[in-house]
Amino acid sequence: MRLRPVRLLTVADLAATMLFAVEGGALGAAAGLDLFGVLVVASATAVGGGIIRDLLLGDVPPAALRSVAYPAVITIGWLLVVVLYSGVRAIPTPVLVTLDAAGLALFCVVGATKALDFTVNPVFAVLLGTVTGVGGGILRDLLLREVPVVLRTDIYAVAAGLGAVVLVVARHFGVPRAAAMAAGAVACLTLRLVSAAFGWHLPQVTA
Amino acid sequence: MRLRPVRLLTVADLAATMLFAVEGGALGAAAGLDLFGVLVVASATAVGGGIIRDLLLGDVPPAALRSVAYPAVITIGWLLVVVLYSGVRAIPTPVLVTLDAAGLALFCVVGATKALDFTVNPVFAVLLGTVTGVGGGILRDLLLREVPVVLRTDIYAVAAGLGAVVLVVARHFGVPRAAAMAAGAVACLTLRLVSAAFGWHLPQVTA
Amino acid sequence: MRLRPVRLLTVADLAATMLFAVEGGALGAAAGLDLFGVLVVASATAVGGGIIRDLLLGDVPPAALRSVAYPAVITIGWLLVVVLYSGVRAIPTPVLVTLDAAGLALFCVVGATKALDFTVNPVFAVLLGTVTGVGGGILRDLLLREVPVVLRTDIYAVAAGLGAVVLVVARHFGVPRAAAMAAGAVACLTLRLVSAAFGWHLPQVTA
Repeated sequence: MRLRPVRLLTVADLAATMLFAVEGGALGAAAGLDLFGVLVVASATAVGGGIIRDLLLGDVPPAALRSVAYPAVITIGWLLVVVLYSGVRAIPTPVLVTLDAAGLALFCVVGATKALDFTVNPVFAVLLGTVTGVGGGILRDLLLREVPVVLRTDIYAVAAGLGAVVLVVARHFGVPRAAAMAAGAVACLTLRLVSAAFGWHLPQVTA
Repeated sequence: MRLRPVRLLTVADLAATMLFAVEGGALGAAAGLDLFGVLVVASATAVGGGIIRDLLLGDVPPAALRSVAYPAVITIGWLLVVVLYSGVRAIPTPVLVTLDAAGLALFCVVGATKALDFTVNPVFAVLLGTVTGVGGGILRDLLLREVPVVLRTDIYAVAAGLGAVVLVVARHFGVPRAAAMAAGAVACLTLRLVSAAFGWHLPQVTA
Repeated sequence: MRLRPVRLLTVADLAATMLFAVEGGALGAAAGLDLFGVLVVASATAVGGGIIRDLLLGDVPPAALRSVAYPAVITIGWLLVVVLYSGVRAIPTPVLVTLDAAGLALFCVVGATKALDFTVNPVFAVLLGTVTGVGGGILRDLLLREVPVVLRTDIYAVAAGLGAVVLVVARHFGVPRAAAMAAGAVACLTLRLVSAAFGWHLPQVTA
């Protein structure tokens, strides 16, 4: 069975939404928030990037607010966090980093693909793919009063940008949508996880 | 005399704008801001939620920027804060909490009503009612570098959500607009004030 | 040679974008960010105000995302910061304040002019001119976790508002676009630099 293009995009988007909801919710729970606060942070992390993308594209109301699938997926992620925390007290950091990297990888290709559907400017598509990937994490960190992940983690937005570039270049050369999305997601995920594992970082300007 | 529906919505919206302008301005003054800073925080608190709602609905330019009534009401609220502070040094906390709860109650039903005018998805209407109620407070707290009220105060967004749910359900069953708005606002106000008075709170996930 | 109106607006916008990119990037470098973090802060400072203005006007995708000129100008500004920092370690504060004031002056007249092109409400045009001027700085400060410049620096948004008022009044009385923009920019720049030099400030409300 071959997934239809639109369906594939929605499935990837919902999967990334779930991953970010669990990760954002877990960070909120670790910060001592109550049940509702955890739901707010999970929601902002999960759909913040996509909503910013849709506002910039002029696709309003944003996709996350048009379908009940997004609230449903966020609610499931929130319940998972609440249950997991009762059982294991805290989700280990490597698990959180991997969840986050997988969500980042899916969101950057979903965002770039949607942007290509709206416009032909490839630079814009790469920017919007990156924004889709990192936007939720920035909102989450502003709510939790931390320095945004984009400024804190060395190879983060760079990985999202790489994934979006791979997707846009592949689509430009006629690679089918599903294969291009897979290639972009793998590129982003690989760079993000390898750089996290080895502690790669970019030089400071003041150094 | 019966208020026309659109007029009722505008009156409720302007009343909530005034309440939030006074409350946001008073918090800005208490934080030691100068005259202009107090005006900025009063404005962000008063129209922030409505502007976010209108951006998400695609109703641009936002209502708060189309009419001179909003700047006028905010200016009056700002002047009240400046005069009150000269007289009484500080507005007591219970007064601030009540002002805030009244603004929250009006904004959540105004936002949900406007959303219903734009779309028929009731989940979306509840979400936008809640966003209208809590958005201004989130912007205010980000500007003042505090943890947003939604994450800090236990039954806050929950109260806004309740008010929006009451309104949407009442409208669904054919209750007239004014009565549905009154019922939603009373539900929100009651839950917010009672929970503040008794210190109700939701459990932490980590507890 | 006379510049065509649209061209003049674009040139002023790109010049302000460059100034804010250099200033935002220099502050990011001083805060110890890496190469990519400096680029993020430079970008947010340079195009944040214009993007907020375009979202509020409903002109989407925002101008900064439709043309490759903006990413190109930001990249040049970013390279300048990286090179300057290698050479001189830090950009002196008076240079930063002057860069910032020049960018503020250009953005407030560009924003107000664009708003007048979209609507005839002069209050709205003044507000959007001010938002265009101060929006990038607010995003920059939120990212760097500082109290936003609008609340911190005494005559800042007031200067942007003055520039926008001068432009709107001049256009109302038929002054040509280029002359009105020059007058507004000079008014903003003068007030900002004089107030910074003499340490002028507005009274606190609590004083």
